[in-house]
Amino acid sequence: MTTTSLEPSDLYPTTRPAAVSEAVERAGLDALLLTPGPDLRYVTGYDALPLERLTCLVVPASGEPFLMVPRLELPAAEHSPASRLGIEFVAWDETEDPYAEVARRLGPVARVGLADRMWAMQSLRFRAVMPEAEQVLAGSVLRDLRMRKSPAEKAALAEAGAAIDAVHNLVPQFLKAGRTEREVGKDIAEAIIDSGHARVDFVIVGSGPNGASPHAELSDRVIRPGEPVVVDIGGVMPSGYCSDSTRNYCVGEPPADYVAYYEVLKRAQEAACAHVRPGVRCESVDAAAREVITEAGYGEYFVHRTGHGIGLETHEEPYIVAGNTEELRPGFAFSVEPGIYLPGRHGARIEDIVVCGETAGERVNHTTRDLVVVD
Amino acid sequence: MTTTSLEPSDLYPTTRPAAVSEAVERAGLDALLLTPGPDLRYVTGYDALPLERLTCLVVPASGEPFLMVPRLELPAAEHSPASRLGIEFVAWDETEDPYAEVARRLGPVARVGLADRMWAMQSLRFRAVMPEAEQVLAGSVLRDLRMRKSPAEKAALAEAGAAIDAVHNLVPQFLKAGRTEREVGKDIAEAIIDSGHARVDFVIVGSGPNGASPHAELSDRVIRPGEPVVVDIGGVMPSGYCSDSTRNYCVGEPPADYVAYYEVLKRAQEAACAHVRPGVRCESVDAAAREVITEAGYGEYFVHRTGHGIGLETHEEPYIVAGNTEELRPGFAFSVEPGIYLPGRHGARIEDIVVCGETAGERVNHTTRDLVVVD
Repeated sequence: MTTTSLEPSDLYPTTRPAAVSEAVERAGLDALLLTPGPDLRYVTGYDALPLERLTCLVVPASGEPFLMVPRLELPAAEHSPASRLGIEFVAWDETEDPYAEVARRLGPVARVGLADRMWAMQSLRFRAVMPEAEQVLAGSVLRDLRMRKSPAEKAALAEAGAAIDAVHNLVPQFLKAGRTEREVGKDIAEAIIDSGHARVDFVIVGSGPNGASPHAELSDRVIRPGEPVVVDIGGVMPSGYCSDSTRNYCVGEPPADYVAYYEVLKRAQEAACAHVRPGVRCESVDAAAREVITEAGYGEYFVHRTGHGIGLETHEEPYIVAGNTEELRPGFAFSVEPGIYLPGRHGARIEDIVVCGETAGERVNHTTRDLVVVD
Repeated sequence: MTTTSLEPSDLYPTTRPAAVSEAVERAGLDALLLTPGPDLRYVTGYDALPLERLTCLVVPASGEPFLMVPRLELPAAEHSPASRLGIEFVAWDETEDPYAEVARRLGPVARVGLADRMWAMQSLRFRAVMPEAEQVLAGSVLRDLRMRKSPAEKAALAEAGAAIDAVHNLVPQFLKAGRTEREVGKDIAEAIIDSGHARVDFVIVGSGPNGASPHAELSDRVIRPGEPVVVDIGGVMPSGYCSDSTRNYCVGEPPADYVAYYEVLKRAQEAACAHVRPGVRCESVDAAAREVITEAGYGEYFVHRTGHGIGLETHEEPYIVAGNTEELRPGFAFSVEPGIYLPGRHGARIEDIVVCGETAGERVNHTTRDLVVVD
């Protein structure tokens, strides 16, 4: 992957609001209403705090975008990348009604797109001040833009991948028999920050039977000799882009039944990654992994979809799941993470982030996918 | 404040779902739909991850509550305090539609209450599967319950207050001329965790002119001798309850204009705290602080409301703001945090969490409210 600058000017180009505005018009919407979250950050670069006071970027199909912002947050907005965009910041005071002001400025509207993560306390207020407007998801307009990662976004995902790889390289130092999952998890969380992430997103250390629960939480369980451990970790980089990678470790010699299915899992993950190219359906990448696992007789133990899109969110579109007929295009970025889980025994999952290129997928994670045996 | 057990059985009593169900009926709603967040946690104790896969507690006015949960999250739900409640967990698989299943189980409904923080991607799906149902905020039902903290909740807020007080007691060790706000903030964040918080919520270190922006973000600004520093910090305890306290420091001797208004601010904060008792309106607590500041000629520099409720959220109802005629009742818990901000110069804010008792308010924060001068 070629290195590209990770400056806000590249990641969040000043041309984006206009491009979004055109997409709003093409989609037959009157405006997008974007409260703090990944949609707002994608359009402006502004990583606004999610607060009960309304911050909202309004992107009309015609006319100029503007940012409603509580007066308290105005300095933060002015210091954010949104200040490069030449859009008006409309500060509102504690006793004013910013919802009514948005409605007043927009005038009569028939259809508005709400940030996918807008809170009900906000969407219902917007409904009250614009009772005639049909509310749809802003994602219906933004998903197409957000799924196709730009060169700068791909560089940001590669940077995130390198950072989380550096953490996986340290895991053998942290993982010892006699320590608890929580102790190991604390070391990993610190390493996630030290590796350059702005914040920890999640840390899963699933030892022994806990590894059989794909979303196990850190527990006080003591890790014992001979136990496989699933380590699934991720964070958010200062760029806003996320990392997510799962590797498998064993404290001492692994159980024979585990070794048997681990090889199957490796082949399945490899097959799904090799299947990535433009034009292939998302469901077909899922099927590529599932086929290998099912043929080996472990189908019932692969209990989740194969992956999820990733970018400014750890989980975003496209989802690599049965029934998703969306075709991959260059720039799509997602996890490929099949797993096999034997309830009460142990489990394994191998996860890379893959970016669809012009002819094939390219992984951003490069640590070994073999089982790592630690002392 | 008497010490009370912070066991889930006290904080999140098993009688709560039934009490909520009665409140739903009284409010004339058919059901509450509670996705992960403070509303769901309040009712069940379950601190569910906010994911794109639907987790939703359904509390009907009549009939039994049930929890829709992705099969992947079933083990987490079963290990959570929600498992004590004897409610049905309905696990759904990757290719099923959990929204349709909720609608099917509820049958025809006229009015449903959505978790205040439900994402639009979920509220619009619920709208699609229940097109006849008016959507209102679950807060309209839950606010009354959530505002009146139980003895166990008050104990949890006192525990959080003691933890953040311990951090403020360490701040003089971290704060030195020549260090950056970010360096000091990193030490504080670690101390927040070491003091017993489960996670850091926010860390504001506003030095010199940055202190004049109430929501300043940590910057690489170097703190210089003679500069006042606003330190506003908070976190979330393992109980789920939040801390939030602001104190003011100066590296060396403070400027004369700062000393002058600091004394005014102290009196204002004291006056507002002394004003707290059952029957007093929220707006009147705001006015008590504002009056002192305005009379001293600094009114235009107090640019925000006096406070916000606190509990499972750092900012929740009741808001201590002009226009809020809600009357305080025993158990209400909120911040009292007037501030004075001289743009381009410096600022100060004094913040305690206050719980309304039977006859007066009681603070949970007890570190000195005087300006703390450090070397």
